Amino acid sequence: MRLSDKGELPLLEALRKKFGKSSRGLLLGIGDDAAVIRPAGRNMLLTTDMMVEGVHFDLAWTTPFQLGFKLVSVNVSDIYAMGGRPEYFLLNFAAPGRFKLDAFDSFFLGIGEALREYGVSLIGGDISSADRMMLSATVTGTASRFVTRGTARPGDGVFVTGTLGDSAGGLLFLKMMKRSVEIEKGRKTSFGPGWKTVGPLIEKHLMPRPRHPGRIMKHATAMMDVSDGLFIDLSRLCRESGVGARIYEELIPVSDELKEAAAFLGVAAIDLATGGGEDYELLFTAPVNDKVKAFRIGEITHKGLRIVGKTGTTKKISPEGYRHFVL
Amino acid sequence: MRLSDKGELPLLEALRKKFGKSSRGLLLGIGDDAAVIRPAGRNMLLTTDMMVEGVHFDLAWTTPFQLGFKLVSVNVSDIYAMGGRPEYFLLNFAAPGRFKLDAFDSFFLGIGEALREYGVSLIGGDISSADRMMLSATVTGTASRFVTRGTARPGDGVFVTGTLGDSAGGLLFLKMMKRSVEIEKGRKTSFGPGWKTVGPLIEKHLMPRPRHPGRIMKHATAMMDVSDGLFIDLSRLCRESGVGARIYEELIPVSDELKEAAAFLGVAAIDLATGGGEDYELLFTAPVNDKVKAFRIGEITHKGLRIVGKTGTTKKISPEGYRHFVL
Repeated sequence: MRLSDKGELPLLEALRKKFGKSSRGLLLGIGDDAAVIRPAGRNMLLTTDMMVEGVHFDLAWTTPFQLGFKLVSVNVSDIYAMGGRPEYFLLNFAAPGRFKLDAFDSFFLGIGEALREYGVSLIGGDISSADRMMLSATVTGTASRFVTRGTARPGDGVFVTGTLGDSAGGLLFLKMMKRSVEIEKGRKTSFGPGWKTVGPLIEKHLMPRPRHPGRIMKHATAMMDVSDGLFIDLSRLCRESGVGARIYEELIPVSDELKEAAAFLGVAAIDLATGGGEDYELLFTAPVNDKVKAFRIGEITHKGLRIVGKTGTTKKISPEGYRHFVL
Repeated sequence: MRLSDKGELPLLEALRKKFGKSSRGLLLGIGDDAAVIRPAGRNMLLTTDMMVEGVHFDLAWTTPFQLGFKLVSVNVSDIYAMGGRPEYFLLNFAAPGRFKLDAFDSFFLGIGEALREYGVSLIGGDISSADRMMLSATVTGTASRFVTRGTARPGDGVFVTGTLGDSAGGLLFLKMMKRSVEIEKGRKTSFGPGWKTVGPLIEKHLMPRPRHPGRIMKHATAMMDVSDGLFIDLSRLCRESGVGARIYEELIPVSDELKEAAAFLGVAAIDLATGGGEDYELLFTAPVNDKVKAFRIGEITHKGLRIVGKTGTTKKISPEGYRHFVL
């Protein structure tokens, strides 16, 4: 059965039944001209993102479930990156009429799974037809205190919450495999260096789990998530803060899986870790003397962006990473 | 010059300069992981919409300025339709790298013009590449009291705030003309019945101005905007309220321009008025004895949806209008 066999209104009605639970603070959910909420905190966070088939994802190696899960995750990551608690989710879904109803249902299972994981409620949005899948989402959150990109100070340490480059490594495998793996159902596949290596990388790309800022909040002087790549994101943080940074190649956390995968693929793991995007780890600055449970990769300087190589040579960082409209 | 000549970051920087003004209640605007606001009222409204080239608009007859203006307008219409005051706007913009920088600038001039008209601030969003233009927007608003679709009562009158079908009539002309007219610069064009007739219809389609609910709020028992067509939207209001309605063909307001245009086009004006979408007038119910400055077109009944023709014959309404995934 396809979307065009069912029609817009029955689809919307089904979603409403599935997601129409009331929550504290939600006065009116799916089904009217707008949703109505009673804001919980003094500060409200708002972020929005768009994902387009062929640009941001490829259904050849992404299941609809994974896509739904990721759409929520990447928006929640933006709320976490401000130090906030995500609350509400609004969705625009567009797909061709020939889109399978099964795939539509799986997509919303993935959405639902992520909403549960992050404690977020779907409160509105729309579905429409288009010649390919296009998604946009808006997530709101609350924060009693929020941390921006613009408040790093010279002398602060630079930290990341986890290994970098795994998502980019996973994407390289997916592009070679050109098939999807239902990791959400515990499925595995054999490919190159074995599932023990490939699996975690692929999962990091397909179903990223953004880092909760909880234990970091009392230390962070500036914070953002790593979505476009360490170099480009660090350069943004530095520009916003009017500072520079020096980071050390040997301190950049790289997983054993990525090292193995990089050897197999014939690429340098450090290039994926500094230039690859979509890790959804937190990149933040904090006083160097604070005991912070994260990887310290360098320090904030007055100006310039530099990386110190393993042999001690210092190089200028030219921000690289995924940028739209850059050929 | 094209978007790909400029790159994502300079484009974002330019937008930030253009729209980065602070406003009361806005703690952090464009440029971080999320925007931060201090909610003004107790109730906050949230609505989101997506517009895709080839589905929702055609650049053959829509200028980028008009598109930007309309994107804001249709979302503001949803806030007005709840009885709210629009406040903040978040945008996702995607277009091909070959998209002209001039067109990009015009689009944001249209956005800016609409934001000023409705008193709304752009506080966040993203731009990315795609093989065609895709837009999504989220608008927030506040309302001390809001009016839903679900509270119409048998015996209430059914009202609309303006003539219906004009937008659909305008679209028919645009589809025949297959060219754009810069009405935002006072440009006119001669086509068929003359600009005096065609102009207002085209403008209603390209640059709709949603109706402010101010004078209606104290009367409305249920309310929504007419976006998909009178019949389908009235059927939604009735379903949500668990009621029926009877409307009278001769009471449905049709503009002289639409009558002339319909005669020229060989279509029935009443079909455009009842089945055509995108009028962005308010459809609401109110006590029949209230003095309401709007067009009364019928009344709410206990059940069934009926239209009384000019000769007094009553027909069942089968909701028609624009529905996605319906062939």
